Amino acid sequence: MALTLTPLIDIPLIQQGDSLVEIVFNSLSKTQIKIEDNDIFIFAQKIVSKAEGRLVNLAQVTASPEAQTLAQAAEKDPRLVELILQESAEVVRTRIGAIIVEHKLGFICANAGIDHSNVAGNGNASEEYVLLLPKDPDASARQIREAVFQQTGKRIGVMIVDSHGRAWRNGTVGMCIGLSGIPALIDERGWKDLFDYTLKITVVGVADELAAAASLMMGQAAEGTPIVHARGFPYPLTEGSLKELIRSKNQDMFR
Amino acid sequence: MALTLTPLIDIPLIQQGDSLVEIVFNSLSKTQIKIEDNDIFIFAQKIVSKAEGRLVNLAQVTASPEAQTLAQAAEKDPRLVELILQESAEVVRTRIGAIIVEHKLGFICANAGIDHSNVAGNGNASEEYVLLLPKDPDASARQIREAVFQQTGKRIGVMIVDSHGRAWRNGTVGMCIGLSGIPALIDERGWKDLFDYTLKITVVGVADELAAAASLMMGQAAEGTPIVHARGFPYPLTEGSLKELIRSKNQDMFR
Repeated sequence: MALTLTPLIDIPLIQQGDSLVEIVFNSLSKTQIKIEDNDIFIFAQKIVSKAEGRLVNLAQVTASPEAQTLAQAAEKDPRLVELILQESAEVVRTRIGAIIVEHKLGFICANAGIDHSNVAGNGNASEEYVLLLPKDPDASARQIREAVFQQTGKRIGVMIVDSHGRAWRNGTVGMCIGLSGIPALIDERGWKDLFDYTLKITVVGVADELAAAASLMMGQAAEGTPIVHARGFPYPLTEGSLKELIRSKNQDMFR
Repeated sequence: MALTLTPLIDIPLIQQGDSLVEIVFNSLSKTQIKIEDNDIFIFAQKIVSKAEGRLVNLAQVTASPEAQTLAQAAEKDPRLVELILQESAEVVRTRIGAIIVEHKLGFICANAGIDHSNVAGNGNASEEYVLLLPKDPDASARQIREAVFQQTGKRIGVMIVDSHGRAWRNGTVGMCIGLSGIPALIDERGWKDLFDYTLKITVVGVADELAAAASLMMGQAAEGTPIVHARGFPYPLTEGSLKELIRSKNQDMFR
Protein backbone atom coordinates (compact mmCIF):
# COMPACT_ATOMS: atom_id res chain seq x y z
CA MET A 1 0.00 0.00 0.00
CA ALA A 2 1.95 2.98 -1.30
CA LEU A 3 0.96 6.59 -1.74
CA THR A 4 1.85 7.95 -5.17
CA LEU A 5 1.78 11.65 -5.99
CA THR A 6 1.99 12.53 -9.67
CA PRO A 7 2.04 16.09 -10.99
CA LEU A 8 -0.26 16.44 -14.00
CA ILE A 9 1.49 17.52 -17.18
CA ASP A 10 0.70 20.17 -19.79
CA ILE A 11 -1.51 22.33 -17.60
CA PRO A 12 -2.08 25.57 -19.54
CA LEU A 13 -2.08 29.05 -18.02
CA ILE A 14 -5.46 29.39 -16.38
CA GLN A 15 -7.87 32.20 -17.28
CA GLN A 16 -11.06 33.31 -15.61
CA GLY A 17 -13.88 30.95 -16.54
CA ASP A 18 -11.67 27.99 -17.41
CA SER A 19 -13.01 24.61 -16.36
CA LEU A 20 -10.45 22.96 -14.11
CA VAL A 21 -12.25 19.65 -14.61
CA GLU A 22 -11.75 19.79 -18.37
CA ILE A 23 -8.13 20.74 -17.83
CA VAL A 24 -7.66 17.70 -15.59
CA PHE A 25 -9.25 15.40 -18.18
CA ASN A 26 -7.12 16.86 -20.99
CA SER A 27 -3.97 16.35 -18.96
CA LEU A 28 -4.92 12.82 -17.90
CA SER A 29 -5.49 11.81 -21.52
CA LYS A 30 -1.77 12.42 -22.07
CA THR A 31 -0.69 10.26 -19.12
CA GLN A 32 -1.04 6.65 -18.05
CA ILE A 33 -3.42 7.70 -15.29
CA LYS A 34 -7.07 6.63 -15.48
CA ILE A 35 -9.27 8.02 -12.71
CA GLU A 36 -10.21 5.45 -10.08
CA ASP A 37 -12.40 5.57 -7.01
CA ASN A 38 -10.49 7.05 -4.04
CA ASP A 39 -8.12 9.07 -6.20
CA ILE A 40 -7.51 12.59 -4.92
CA PHE A 41 -6.73 15.66 -6.98
CA ILE A 42 -4.91 18.51 -5.26
CA PHE A 43 -5.05 21.98 -6.81
CA ALA A 44 -2.78 24.94 -6.13
CA GLN A 45 -4.86 27.82 -4.78
CA LYS A 46 -3.54 30.06 -7.49
CA ILE A 47 -5.21 28.32 -10.41
CA VAL A 48 -8.52 27.96 -8.59
CA SER A 49 -8.45 31.69 -7.84
CA LYS A 50 -7.62 32.52 -11.45
CA ALA A 51 -10.40 30.30 -12.81
CA GLU A 52 -12.80 32.01 -10.41
CA GLY A 53 -11.76 35.49 -11.47
CA ARG A 54 -10.20 36.58 -8.19
CA LEU A 55 -7.71 38.94 -9.87
CA VAL A 56 -7.89 42.53 -8.63
CA ASN A 57 -6.32 45.52 -10.36
CA LEU A 58 -4.57 47.53 -7.66
CA ALA A 59 -5.19 50.71 -9.68
CA GLN A 60 -8.85 50.36 -8.81
CA VAL A 61 -8.31 50.02 -5.06
CA THR A 62 -8.49 52.99 -2.70
CA ALA A 63 -6.66 52.61 0.60
CA SER A 64 -8.56 53.54 3.74
CA PRO A 65 -6.78 55.57 6.43
CA GLU A 66 -6.42 52.36 8.46
CA ALA A 67 -4.77 50.62 5.51
CA GLN A 68 -2.43 53.57 5.00
CA THR A 69 -1.25 53.47 8.59
CA LEU A 70 -0.73 49.73 8.52
CA ALA A 71 1.02 49.97 5.14
CA GLN A 72 3.55 52.33 6.64
CA ALA A 73 4.29 49.94 9.51
CA ALA A 74 4.64 46.97 7.16
CA GLU A 75 6.32 48.90 4.33
CA LYS A 76 3.79 47.59 1.84
CA ASP A 77 1.63 49.11 -0.92
CA PRO A 78 -1.37 50.75 0.84
CA ARG A 79 -3.74 49.43 -1.83
CA LEU A 80 -2.53 45.88 -1.23
CA VAL A 81 -2.94 46.42 2.52
CA GLU A 82 -6.49 47.62 1.88
CA LEU A 83 -7.24 44.28 0.18
CA ILE A 84 -5.52 42.38 3.00
CA LEU A 85 -7.80 44.11 5.51
CA GLN A 86 -10.89 43.44 3.40
CA GLU A 87 -10.00 39.75 3.24
CA SER A 88 -9.30 39.43 6.97
CA ALA A 89 -11.22 39.09 10.19
CA GLU A 90 -8.36 40.36 12.37
CA VAL A 91 -4.75 41.52 12.18
CA VAL A 92 -2.64 39.29 14.44
CA ARG A 93 0.91 40.63 13.97
CA THR A 94 2.63 43.18 11.76
CA ARG A 95 6.26 43.38 10.81
CA ILE A 96 8.12 44.82 7.84
CA GLY A 97 7.06 42.86 4.78
CA ALA A 98 4.37 40.77 6.41
CA ILE A 99 0.98 41.32 7.95
CA ILE A 100 -0.15 38.18 9.76
CA VAL A 101 -3.93 37.97 9.80
CA GLU A 102 -6.84 35.74 10.58
CA HIS A 103 -8.27 35.33 7.12
CA LYS A 104 -12.05 35.53 6.81
CA LEU A 105 -11.87 31.83 5.96
CA GLY A 106 -10.62 31.24 9.52
CA PHE A 107 -6.94 30.37 9.22
CA ILE A 108 -3.95 32.47 10.25
CA CYS A 109 -1.70 33.40 7.32
CA ALA A 110 0.54 36.15 5.99
CA ASN A 111 -0.94 38.94 3.85
CA ALA A 112 -4.34 37.23 3.67
CA GLY A 113 -2.87 34.83 1.13
CA ILE A 114 -2.88 37.53 -1.53
CA ASP A 115 -0.44 36.66 -4.26
CA HIS A 116 1.58 38.98 -6.39
CA SER A 117 3.78 36.62 -8.40
CA ASN A 118 2.76 34.75 -11.54
CA VAL A 119 -0.06 37.20 -12.08
CA ALA A 120 -0.03 38.58 -15.62
CA GLY A 121 -0.75 42.22 -16.19
CA ASN A 122 -0.52 43.75 -19.62
CA GLY A 123 2.85 45.37 -19.06
CA ASN A 124 1.12 48.67 -18.33
CA ALA A 125 2.30 50.10 -15.02
CA SER A 126 -1.19 51.42 -14.37
CA GLU A 127 -2.48 47.85 -14.23
CA GLU A 128 -0.94 45.81 -11.48
CA TYR A 129 -2.87 42.72 -10.57
CA VAL A 130 -2.94 40.69 -7.42
CA LEU A 131 -4.80 37.46 -6.75
CA LEU A 132 -7.16 36.84 -3.82
CA LEU A 133 -7.92 33.41 -2.37
CA PRO A 134 -11.04 31.61 -3.62
CA LYS A 135 -14.18 32.90 -1.89
CA ASP A 136 -15.25 29.49 -0.58
CA PRO A 137 -12.56 26.88 -1.21
CA ASP A 138 -14.61 24.00 0.24
CA ALA A 139 -17.33 24.83 -2.29
CA SER A 140 -14.77 25.09 -5.09
CA ALA A 141 -13.47 21.65 -4.17
CA ARG A 142 -16.97 20.22 -3.95
CA GLN A 143 -17.92 21.50 -7.39
CA ILE A 144 -14.87 19.86 -8.95
CA ARG A 145 -15.51 16.61 -7.10
CA GLU A 146 -19.16 16.53 -8.20
CA ALA A 147 -18.33 17.35 -11.81
CA VAL A 148 -15.79 14.53 -11.94
CA PHE A 149 -18.37 12.16 -10.46
CA GLN A 150 -20.98 13.21 -13.02
CA GLN A 151 -18.62 12.67 -15.92
CA THR A 152 -16.85 9.51 -14.76
CA GLY A 153 -18.93 7.92 -12.00
CA LYS A 154 -15.77 7.88 -9.85
CA ARG A 155 -15.83 8.95 -6.20
CA ILE A 156 -12.74 11.08 -5.74
CA GLY A 157 -11.46 13.61 -3.23
CA VAL A 158 -10.48 17.18 -4.08
CA MET A 159 -8.25 19.52 -2.12
CA ILE A 160 -7.06 23.09 -2.60
CA VAL A 161 -3.68 23.98 -1.09
CA ASP A 162 -1.66 27.09 -0.41
CA SER A 163 1.85 27.56 1.00
CA HIS A 164 1.88 28.97 4.52
CA GLY A 165 4.63 30.03 6.85
CA ARG A 166 4.71 28.56 10.34
CA ALA A 167 5.05 30.32 13.68
CA TRP A 168 8.32 28.70 14.72
CA ARG A 169 9.82 27.01 11.72
CA ASN A 170 11.54 28.31 8.61
CA GLY A 171 10.16 27.55 5.20
CA THR A 172 6.64 27.51 3.84
CA VAL A 173 4.66 24.28 3.76
CA GLY A 174 1.59 23.37 1.74
CA MET A 175 -1.60 23.49 3.80
CA CYS A 176 -5.16 22.59 2.98
CA ILE A 177 -7.41 25.63 2.48
CA GLY A 178 -10.39 23.74 1.11
CA LEU A 179 -11.48 20.17 0.57
CA SER A 180 -14.29 17.89 -0.40
CA GLY A 181 -14.60 14.14 -0.34
CA ILE A 182 -11.66 13.58 2.00
CA PRO A 183 -11.39 13.78 5.78
CA ALA A 184 -9.71 16.83 7.32
CA LEU A 185 -8.78 15.05 10.54
CA ILE A 186 -8.52 11.48 11.76
CA ASP A 187 -9.44 11.22 15.41
CA GLU A 188 -7.44 8.45 17.08
CA ARG A 189 -8.47 9.29 20.61
CA GLY A 190 -9.24 6.08 22.44
CA TRP A 191 -7.54 3.82 19.91
CA LYS A 192 -5.44 1.14 21.54
CA ASP A 193 -1.74 1.08 20.99
CA LEU A 194 0.49 -1.96 20.51
CA PHE A 195 0.58 -2.66 24.22
CA ASP A 196 -3.17 -2.33 24.61
CA TYR A 197 -2.95 0.90 26.48
CA THR A 198 -5.78 3.17 25.43
CA LEU A 199 -3.65 6.22 25.90
CA LYS A 200 -3.87 7.68 22.45
CA ILE A 201 -4.94 11.30 22.52
CA THR A 202 -4.02 12.20 18.98
CA VAL A 203 -6.04 13.88 16.30
CA VAL A 204 -4.07 13.73 13.07
CA GLY A 205 -4.23 16.50 10.48
CA VAL A 206 -4.28 14.12 7.53
CA ALA A 207 -5.53 16.73 5.06
CA ASP A 208 -2.62 19.00 5.90
CA GLU A 209 -0.22 16.06 5.64
CA LEU A 210 -1.50 15.32 2.15
CA ALA A 211 -1.43 19.04 1.29
CA ALA A 212 2.25 19.20 2.25
CA ALA A 213 3.02 16.12 0.17
CA ALA A 214 1.25 17.51 -2.88
CA SER A 215 2.82 20.91 -2.47
CA LEU A 216 6.26 19.30 -2.53
CA MET A 217 5.44 17.92 -5.97
CA MET A 218 3.98 21.13 -7.36
CA GLY A 219 7.41 22.69 -7.59
CA GLN A 220 7.20 26.34 -6.84
CA ALA A 221 9.64 27.42 -9.52
CA ALA A 222 7.58 28.27 -12.56
CA GLU A 223 4.21 27.16 -11.18
CA GLY A 224 4.27 24.61 -13.95
CA THR A 225 2.52 21.75 -12.18
CA PRO A 226 -0.34 23.18 -10.12
CA ILE A 227 -2.38 19.96 -10.07
CA VAL A 228 -1.23 16.76 -8.39
CA HIS A 229 -2.90 13.37 -8.54
CA ALA A 230 -2.68 11.24 -5.38
CA ARG A 231 -3.43 7.54 -5.19
CA GLY A 232 -3.18 5.41 -2.06
CA PHE A 233 -4.46 7.80 0.63
CA PRO A 234 -4.57 5.44 3.60
CA TYR A 235 -7.98 6.38 5.05
CA PRO A 236 -11.55 6.04 3.77
CA LEU A 237 -12.71 9.05 1.76
CA THR A 238 -15.32 10.73 3.94
CA GLU A 239 -16.44 14.36 3.73
CA GLY A 240 -14.29 16.93 5.49
CA SER A 241 -14.30 20.70 5.77
CA LEU A 242 -11.75 23.47 6.23
CA LYS A 243 -13.48 24.48 9.45
CA GLU A 244 -12.34 21.29 11.18
CA LEU A 245 -8.71 22.26 10.60
CA ILE A 246 -9.02 25.69 12.25
CA ARG A 247 -8.20 25.86 15.96
CA SER A 248 -10.95 27.80 17.69
CA LYS A 249 -9.95 31.16 19.11
CA ASN A 250 -10.56 30.07 22.70
CA GLN A 251 -8.12 27.17 22.21
CA ASP A 252 -5.50 29.45 20.65
CA MET A 253 -2.54 30.10 22.95
CA PHE A 254 -0.50 32.06 20.43
CA ARG A 255 -2.55 34.92 19.09
CA MET B 1 8.14 12.11 -12.18
CA ALA B 2 6.07 10.85 -9.29
CA LEU B 3 6.81 10.67 -5.58
CA THR B 4 6.06 7.25 -4.10
CA LEU B 5 5.90 6.63 -0.37
CA THR B 6 5.91 3.00 0.71
CA PRO B 7 5.67 1.87 4.33
CA LEU B 8 8.15 -0.92 5.02
CA ILE B 9 6.57 -4.16 6.15
CA ASP B 10 7.32 -6.56 8.99
CA ILE B 11 9.18 -4.10 11.18
CA PRO B 12 9.63 -5.81 14.57
CA LEU B 13 9.25 -4.12 17.94
CA ILE B 14 12.46 -2.19 18.44
CA GLN B 15 14.71 -2.78 21.46
CA GLN B 16 17.67 -0.81 22.71
CA GLY B 17 20.74 -1.63 20.65
CA ASP B 18 18.82 -2.81 17.57
CA SER B 19 20.36 -1.86 14.24
CA LEU B 20 17.78 0.10 12.28
CA VAL B 21 19.86 -0.42 9.15
CA GLU B 22 19.62 -4.20 9.46
CA ILE B 23 15.92 -3.89 10.12
CA VAL B 24 15.52 -1.87 6.92
CA PHE B 25 17.47 -4.44 4.89
CA ASN B 26 15.45 -7.31 6.36
CA SER B 27 12.21 -5.57 5.49
CA LEU B 28 13.34 -4.63 1.99
CA SER B 29 14.27 -8.24 1.25
CA LYS B 30 10.57 -9.04 1.60
CA THR B 31 9.44 -6.33 -0.82
CA GLN B 32 10.00 -5.43 -4.44
CA ILE B 33 12.08 -2.42 -3.38
CA LYS B 34 15.81 -2.37 -4.16
CA ILE B 35 17.68 0.61 -2.77
CA GLU B 36 18.61 3.17 -5.43
CA ASP B 37 20.56 6.40 -5.31
CA ASN B 38 18.33 9.29 -4.15
CA ASP B 39 15.97 7.06 -2.19
CA ILE B 40 14.99 8.48 1.18
CA PHE B 41 14.12 6.52 4.32
CA ILE B 42 11.98 8.24 6.92
CA PHE B 43 11.95 6.89 10.47
CA ALA B 44 9.41 7.56 13.21
CA GLN B 45 11.16 9.20 16.15
CA LYS B 46 9.87 6.53 18.44
CA ILE B 47 11.88 3.65 17.00
CA VAL B 48 15.06 5.72 16.78
CA SER B 49 14.64 6.65 20.44
CA LYS B 50 14.02 3.03 21.42
CA ALA B 51 17.05 1.79 19.49
CA GLU B 52 19.12 4.44 21.24
CA GLY B 53 17.90 3.49 24.68
CA ARG B 54 16.03 6.70 25.48
CA LEU B 55 13.50 4.95 27.74
CA VAL B 56 13.30 6.39 31.25
CA ASN B 57 11.63 4.70 34.20
CA LEU B 58 9.52 7.36 35.92
CA ALA B 59 10.03 5.58 39.25
CA GLN B 60 13.64 6.71 39.12
CA VAL B 61 12.86 10.38 38.53
CA THR B 62 12.62 12.91 41.36
CA ALA B 63 10.59 16.01 40.65
CA SER B 64 12.18 19.33 41.54
CA PRO B 65 10.05 22.00 43.26
CA GLU B 66 9.81 23.81 39.91
CA ALA B 67 8.52 20.64 38.24
CA GLN B 68 6.00 20.12 41.03
CA THR B 69 4.57 23.60 40.63
CA LEU B 70 4.36 23.28 36.86
CA ALA B 71 2.84 19.80 37.18
CA GLN B 72 0.03 21.22 39.24
CA ALA B 73 -0.73 23.89 36.63
CA ALA B 74 -0.65 21.36 33.79
CA GLU B 75 -2.28 18.53 35.76
CA LYS B 76 0.53 16.16 34.80
CA ASP B 77 2.75 13.67 36.63
CA PRO B 78 5.47 15.74 38.39
CA ARG B 79 8.13 13.20 37.40
CA LEU B 80 7.15 13.52 33.75
CA VAL B 81 7.25 17.30 34.09
CA GLU B 82 10.74 17.02 35.59
CA LEU B 83 11.87 15.20 32.44
CA ILE B 84 10.11 17.77 30.24
CA LEU B 85 12.05 20.54 31.99
CA GLN B 86 15.33 18.65 31.68
CA GLU B 87 14.76 18.22 27.96
CA SER B 88 13.79 21.86 27.37
CA ALA B 89 15.50 25.20 26.98
CA GLU B 90 12.41 27.21 27.90
CA VAL B 91 8.73 26.80 28.79
CA VAL B 92 6.65 28.78 26.28
CA ARG B 93 3.06 28.11 27.38
CA THR B 94 1.30 25.90 29.90
CA ARG B 95 -2.26 24.68 29.90
CA ILE B 96 -3.99 21.66 31.35
CA GLY B 97 -2.56 18.60 29.66
CA ALA B 98 0.17 20.32 27.67
CA ILE B 99 3.38 22.14 28.40
CA ILE B 100 4.62 23.86 25.25
CA VAL B 101 8.39 24.19 25.33
CA GLU B 102 11.39 25.08 23.29
CA HIS B 103 13.10 21.71 23.20
CA LYS B 104 16.86 21.71 23.69
CA LEU B 105 17.04 20.65 20.05
CA GLY B 106 15.57 24.06 19.14
CA PHE B 107 12.02 23.45 18.04
CA ILE B 108 8.80 24.34 19.83
CA CYS B 109 6.71 21.31 20.77
CA ALA B 110 4.36 19.95 23.40
CA ASN B 111 5.76 18.07 26.42
CA ALA B 112 9.30 18.08 24.99
CA GLY B 113 8.22 15.34 22.62
CA ILE B 114 8.20 12.81 25.47
CA ASP B 115 6.04 9.86 24.58
CA HIS B 116 4.00 7.68 26.84
CA SER B 117 2.16 5.38 24.46
CA ASN B 118 3.54 2.24 22.85
CA VAL B 119 6.18 2.05 25.55
CA ALA B 120 6.32 -1.40 27.12
CA GLY B 121 6.78 -1.71 30.82
CA ASN B 122 6.68 -5.08 32.54
CA GLY B 123 3.15 -4.67 33.86
CA ASN B 124 4.56 -3.64 37.22
CA ALA B 125 3.04 -0.36 38.37
CA SER B 126 6.37 0.63 39.92
CA GLU B 127 7.93 0.70 36.46
CA GLU B 128 6.33 3.18 34.16
CA TYR B 129 8.45 4.07 31.17
CA VAL B 130 8.44 7.12 28.96
CA LEU B 131 10.50 7.76 25.86
CA LEU B 132 12.67 10.82 25.25
CA LEU B 133 13.59 12.14 21.80
CA PRO B 134 16.93 11.04 20.32
CA LYS B 135 19.82 13.07 21.73
CA ASP B 136 21.05 14.29 18.35
CA PRO B 137 18.63 13.31 15.58
CA ASP B 138 20.78 14.76 12.78
CA ALA B 139 23.61 12.50 13.96
CA SER B 140 21.25 9.52 14.19
CA ALA B 141 20.15 10.15 10.60
CA ARG B 142 23.73 10.58 9.42
CA GLN B 143 24.82 7.30 10.98
CA ILE B 144 22.04 5.41 9.22
CA ARG B 145 22.80 7.14 5.91
CA GLU B 146 26.51 6.32 6.16
CA ALA B 147 25.88 2.70 7.14
CA VAL B 148 23.58 2.24 4.14
CA PHE B 149 26.23 3.77 1.87
CA GLN B 150 28.92 1.50 3.28
CA GLN B 151 26.82 -1.61 2.74
CA THR B 152 25.24 -0.75 -0.62
CA GLY B 153 27.22 2.08 -2.20
CA LYS B 154 23.93 3.97 -2.60
CA ARG B 155 23.64 7.65 -1.74
CA ILE B 156 20.38 7.98 0.12
CA GLY B 157 18.71 10.51 2.40
CA VAL B 158 17.52 9.79 5.93
CA MET B 159 14.99 11.68 7.99
CA ILE B 160 13.55 11.31 11.48
CA VAL B 161 10.02 12.59 12.03
CA ASP B 162 7.71 13.28 14.92
CA SER B 163 4.09 14.44 15.05
CA HIS B 164 3.69 18.00 16.26
CA GLY B 165 0.70 20.18 16.96
CA ARG B 166 0.50 23.57 15.30
CA ALA B 167 -0.22 26.96 16.82
CA TRP B 168 -3.43 27.66 14.91
CA ARG B 169 -4.57 24.45 13.30
CA ASN B 170 -6.14 21.30 14.64
CA GLY B 171 -4.47 17.96 14.18
CA THR B 172 -0.87 16.89 14.49
CA VAL B 173 1.35 16.80 11.43
CA GLY B 174 4.61 14.97 10.85
CA MET B 175 7.62 17.28 11.09
CA CYS B 176 11.29 16.69 10.50
CA ILE B 177 13.33 16.52 13.74
CA GLY B 178 16.55 15.30 12.15
CA LEU B 179 17.95 14.65 8.70
CA SER B 180 21.00 13.78 6.70
CA GLY B 181 21.58 13.68 2.98
CA ILE B 182 18.53 15.73 2.07
CA PRO B 183 17.98 19.49 2.04
CA ALA B 184 15.96 21.05 4.86
CA LEU B 185 14.93 24.09 2.82
CA ILE B 186 14.85 25.11 -0.83
CA ASP B 187 15.54 28.81 -1.23
CA GLU B 188 13.66 30.15 -4.24
CA ARG B 189 14.37 33.80 -3.52
CA GLY B 190 15.25 35.53 -6.76
CA TRP B 191 13.90 32.75 -8.98
CA LYS B 192 11.90 34.09 -11.91
CA ASP B 193 8.26 33.26 -12.19
CA LEU B 194 6.32 32.44 -15.36
CA PHE B 195 6.03 36.08 -16.31
CA ASP B 196 9.69 36.80 -15.71
CA TYR B 197 9.07 38.82 -12.63
CA THR B 198 11.78 38.12 -10.09
CA LEU B 199 9.41 38.56 -7.22
CA LYS B 200 9.77 35.22 -5.58
CA ILE B 201 10.56 35.53 -1.90
CA THR B 202 9.83 32.00 -0.87
CA VAL B 203 11.89 29.55 1.12
CA VAL B 204 10.17 26.17 1.01
CA GLY B 205 10.31 23.77 3.94
CA VAL B 206 10.75 20.70 1.75
CA ALA B 207 11.97 18.48 4.59
CA ASP B 208 8.84 19.20 6.59
CA GLU B 209 6.70 18.60 3.50
CA LEU B 210 8.29 15.18 3.06
CA ALA B 211 7.99 14.53 6.80
CA ALA B 212 4.25 15.21 6.64
CA ALA B 213 3.88 12.91 3.63
CA ALA B 214 5.76 10.08 5.33
CA SER B 215 3.90 10.55 8.58
CA LEU B 216 0.60 10.14 6.71
CA MET B 217 1.79 6.70 5.61
CA MET B 218 3.08 5.60 8.99
CA GLY B 219 -0.43 5.15 10.29
CA GLN B 220 -0.61 6.15 13.88
CA ALA B 221 -2.89 3.34 14.93
CA ALA B 222 -0.66 0.55 16.13
CA GLU B 223 2.67 2.13 15.19
CA GLY B 224 3.01 -0.78 12.84
CA THR B 225 4.85 0.95 9.99
CA PRO B 226 7.41 3.29 11.52
CA ILE B 227 9.70 3.34 8.47
CA VAL B 228 8.69 4.76 5.09
CA HIS B 229 10.62 4.55 1.84
CA ALA B 230 10.33 7.56 -0.49
CA ARG B 231 11.35 7.62 -4.13
CA GLY B 232 11.03 10.61 -6.44
CA PHE B 233 11.92 13.51 -4.13
CA PRO B 234 12.01 16.35 -6.64
CA TYR B 235 15.21 18.10 -5.54
CA PRO B 236 18.88 17.08 -5.54
CA LEU B 237 19.95 15.34 -2.34
CA THR B 238 22.27 17.80 -0.60
CA GLU B 239 23.11 17.86 3.11
CA GLY B 240 20.65 19.60 5.40
CA SER B 241 20.32 20.07 9.14
CA LEU B 242 17.55 20.48 11.68
CA LYS B 243 18.96 23.87 12.63
CA GLU B 244 17.93 25.33 9.27
CA LEU B 245 14.29 24.53 10.01
CA ILE B 246 14.23 26.39 13.33
CA ARG B 247 13.12 30.01 13.23
CA SER B 248 15.57 32.05 15.25
CA LYS B 249 14.22 33.57 18.44
CA ASN B 250 14.65 37.14 17.19
CA GLN B 251 12.48 36.31 14.16
CA ASP B 252 9.81 34.67 16.32
CA MET B 253 6.64 36.77 16.62
CA PHE B 254 4.66 34.20 18.56
CA ARG B 255 6.56 33.17 21.64
